Amino acid sequence: MGEFDLIERYFKRPGHQADVGIGDDCAIWTPRAGHQLAISTDMLVEGRHFLSTVDPARLGHKSLAVNLSDLAACGATPKVFLLSLALPRADEAWLAGFSQGLFALADAHGCELIGGDTTQGPLNISITVMGEVPAQQAILRSGAKAGDDLYVSGHLGDARLALEAFRGQISLPQAVWEAARLRMETPTPRVALGQVLRGVATAMADISDGLLGDLGHILRASQVGARIDWPASQGLLAASATWPCPETLAMTCVLTGGDDYELVFTAPASARLAVQAAAAASGTRITRMGQITAERQLTVLDAHGHAIAHHLRSFDHFA
Amino acid sequence: MGEFDLIERYFKRPGHQADVGIGDDCAIWTPRAGHQLAISTDMLVEGRHFLSTVDPARLGHKSLAVNLSDLAACGATPKVFLLSLALPRADEAWLAGFSQGLFALADAHGCELIGGDTTQGPLNISITVMGEVPAQQAILRSGAKAGDDLYVSGHLGDARLALEAFRGQISLPQAVWEAARLRMETPTPRVALGQVLRGVATAMADISDGLLGDLGHILRASQVGARIDWPASQGLLAASATWPCPETLAMTCVLTGGDDYELVFTAPASARLAVQAAAAASGTRITRMGQITAERQLTVLDAHGHAIAHHLRSFDHFA
Repeated sequence: MGEFDLIERYFKRPGHQADVGIGDDCAIWTPRAGHQLAISTDMLVEGRHFLSTVDPARLGHKSLAVNLSDLAACGATPKVFLLSLALPRADEAWLAGFSQGLFALADAHGCELIGGDTTQGPLNISITVMGEVPAQQAILRSGAKAGDDLYVSGHLGDARLALEAFRGQISLPQAVWEAARLRMETPTPRVALGQVLRGVATAMADISDGLLGDLGHILRASQVGARIDWPASQGLLAASATWPCPETLAMTCVLTGGDDYELVFTAPASARLAVQAAAAASGTRITRMGQITAERQLTVLDAHGHAIAHHLRSFDHFA
Repeated sequence: MGEFDLIERYFKRPGHQADVGIGDDCAIWTPRAGHQLAISTDMLVEGRHFLSTVDPARLGHKSLAVNLSDLAACGATPKVFLLSLALPRADEAWLAGFSQGLFALADAHGCELIGGDTTQGPLNISITVMGEVPAQQAILRSGAKAGDDLYVSGHLGDARLALEAFRGQISLPQAVWEAARLRMETPTPRVALGQVLRGVATAMADISDGLLGDLGHILRASQVGARIDWPASQGLLAASATWPCPETLAMTCVLTGGDDYELVFTAPASARLAVQAAAAASGTRITRMGQITAERQLTVLDAHGHAIAHHLRSFDHFA
């Protein structure tokens, strides 16, 4: 199977968004008037972002999910994406699975593949995604204000728990392991929540490298600090509902886990009802887990309001 | 040096195009009203698209050049790009050289880096580039008509000649070798020519996989054929001006060489003056090398008008 057959067979589909889709030198696309473009790109490398044993359909899902998560973090509506693939070989079973998982998520969000590139090389998946946001309504990292509430969507830390089990550091009951693995391999980008938070959230980021690190981006961009209420956050680890996770492990997973693809966001206390309404409208669980402070520090408080000493770091690809 | 330091030090610069550039979950950008977006992406892999010995500044140039070439092929004006890099390690000398070559070309075209991703992994460079084109004026592959003239820009085949020398298949005089190597390592995207051909050229593509293959894309999309006049094309190999290249090698290099990043385009015979004016306005050499035919075949004719039997193929990453 040659390069063009591969594209024809697994990636070319009838389009609706693009004026010109796959098959010319460029895709041609006309965004709607009155909107700004939100654009993001993520590269996934075998052994780094996924294990070689991962099911290709789950990998197809995750490759797009991590990109949609960036759009969600700005409150943007996904529209189109481009896919570049370096493949060791043209493995039809792998391509069939990968493209099925990819397009299932793409279709769920009405996000259309309009171009890409394929080449021979060590497995590498690079996606660029583009969305629309009404002019001046993108939710940035820089808008958090002292006194704002601090929220996260969904659950945190289960992907990290699965990774620890994969690495043989811990042993999990089968059902807990399967659920955690699903969180690691098929994260849910919070696209609907991101959009309904426009005009409500003051700052937002997605959690890819771990809560403390990604919240740190918000704090630096907004020139503020934050207090995290650990007792309120403890239940964020979904596995802890059915499995007695040691507290230090839970803390590591929830606060620094990475690969969560949940949203961390801030909103004024006066917007609590609006935040709840947004969560309900998008069918997304949210947790109020702390507060933004004027003092530019990030502290985690225990049940007695005492700071927990933490030497927890987020993921850095070159650290 | 960590991931964020690396971005800060080598890739973050003051921006003008983007509303929000590097440093948030997404870049935010507002294209001009009345324009369509032209979007393309190319992935470069070590050992496949470049040799490990290449100068990093030249590699930075080439990585963006091959993407700008796709915009040129649609007649689009470059605006913004995103860069994803997988690096075996954070090598400061390499990053300094790569970013210098990349930004020198980006600045020459007013094309702004607005986002990207960096990760640890086998060297892989993935760029997505976006340009603007006035509504309905993109030059596509599908517009060639029987009777149209066939043109190429610049020179063809020298990159392939350099590759043959690299592989030890041929031996070149030092000056010829250096010139050919420069063509292979620092191709010139024909951005200015592409833009002035809007409204003049009926179809266009860039030559990345070899003339016959990329012209073939135009022929299939336009449902036509073409006759190439070999004597008119022979001089396309720049090296042949100073070095007596064997004719079969010249033919292989010019017709199937690949890595040329020149433009192949068609225009009606009535537009010959307009084509010459476009070439002059953009300071680009062009060669009229054949004609589009109604008969859906691609033939190469010798000085006597006889078809040259060719079994020449273009590059296919999975063939």
